[in-house]
Amino acid sequence: MQYPEPITKLINSYMKLPGIGYKTAVRLSFYTIKMNKKDIEEFSQNLINVQSKLHYCNICGNITDEDPCVICKSKNRKRDTILVVENSRDVMSMEKTKSYNGLYHVLHGVLSPIDGKGPNDINIKSLIKRLKNPQIKEVILATNATSEGEATAMYLARLIKPSGIKVTRIAQGLSAGSDIEYADNITLLRAVEGRTEL
Amino acid sequence: MQYPEPITKLINSYMKLPGIGYKTAVRLSFYTIKMNKKDIEEFSQNLINVQSKLHYCNICGNITDEDPCVICKSKNRKRDTILVVENSRDVMSMEKTKSYNGLYHVLHGVLSPIDGKGPNDINIKSLIKRLKNPQIKEVILATNATSEGEATAMYLARLIKPSGIKVTRIAQGLSAGSDIEYADNITLLRAVEGRTEL
Repeated sequence: MQYPEPITKLINSYMKLPGIGYKTAVRLSFYTIKMNKKDIEEFSQNLINVQSKLHYCNICGNITDEDPCVICKSKNRKRDTILVVENSRDVMSMEKTKSYNGLYHVLHGVLSPIDGKGPNDINIKSLIKRLKNPQIKEVILATNATSEGEATAMYLARLIKPSGIKVTRIAQGLSAGSDIEYADNITLLRAVEGRTEL
Repeated sequence: MQYPEPITKLINSYMKLPGIGYKTAVRLSFYTIKMNKKDIEEFSQNLINVQSKLHYCNICGNITDEDPCVICKSKNRKRDTILVVENSRDVMSMEKTKSYNGLYHVLHGVLSPIDGKGPNDINIKSLIKRLKNPQIKEVILATNATSEGEATAMYLARLIKPSGIKVTRIAQGLSAGSDIEYADNITLLRAVEGRTEL
């Protein structure tokens, strides 16, 4: 005994999403049957649109539905600073802070020799090309504080520095609201190393 | 700053599913962008099909893509027993045990005065109609062991008994592998009440 074919097929589709196992997929599928028809038609269309209407910005590599993207096109942003991030979600996280007003560059990954990912597998070439523009005064490396993120930042710093452009790395230390007592060794070490004068 | 429109729309669609909040919806949406195009087209189509190709069996109320459903149509099933469940997933759960070979009736809900659900709001009328068939010898009430499930079973028992058909309720007691020490009071009480002679 199996579920009717349309349900089985939808269960299989849901299971292709990350973190959704068989039981959740069954629950979602049965929920879907009773959902508002209009919502389902929109859902169905939105799935297609997200692939057909989106592409990567030719300049910064951020995901966008226009080219160049709103940030690269904007006249209100400082064009002398590029902040380098691993992926498009990081751009959104930075934007939410409303504290940065320069440009971005999205790498779409990090250097990761174990996964066979070298400099040619991430969006570095177009960054180097952008840096030929004499307007650029600073590159802020905002890759994650993981070993791959660190390695990628180091690699980029060594690559860019000879050109004379200022290269900075975002600070590491205690996260807001956290206790020294519970901080791990590396975080604490970096917090002391990165101390600032008051 | 917002995500490009196609992403925002897909995030909203994912958030209409139960148990999926904003952060998960963002994660799923970005995953969707990079999914295999064929998988997405299938997903999109399966969402539509699950509503357009499925309906409820005219006899038992189970969800099906044929009418009557495979179980009602089957010639290998005993046609003298009807097992009453709350929803179509319960039919699947019973079928998985491979221990029941009779017919089903799906109520699509339970009596729940608090939610304003009375006898006319669940699939009871067609059950009573089915019971006019003299072939039917037993009705097994397999609603959940919740207060609503119990109340619904009691209601149905009182409704059916005058017709002379045998009405039974599935057993309650310790679940397989469980400890008496950790069982709750009601379960233990029912386990003792429902004891069987060895």
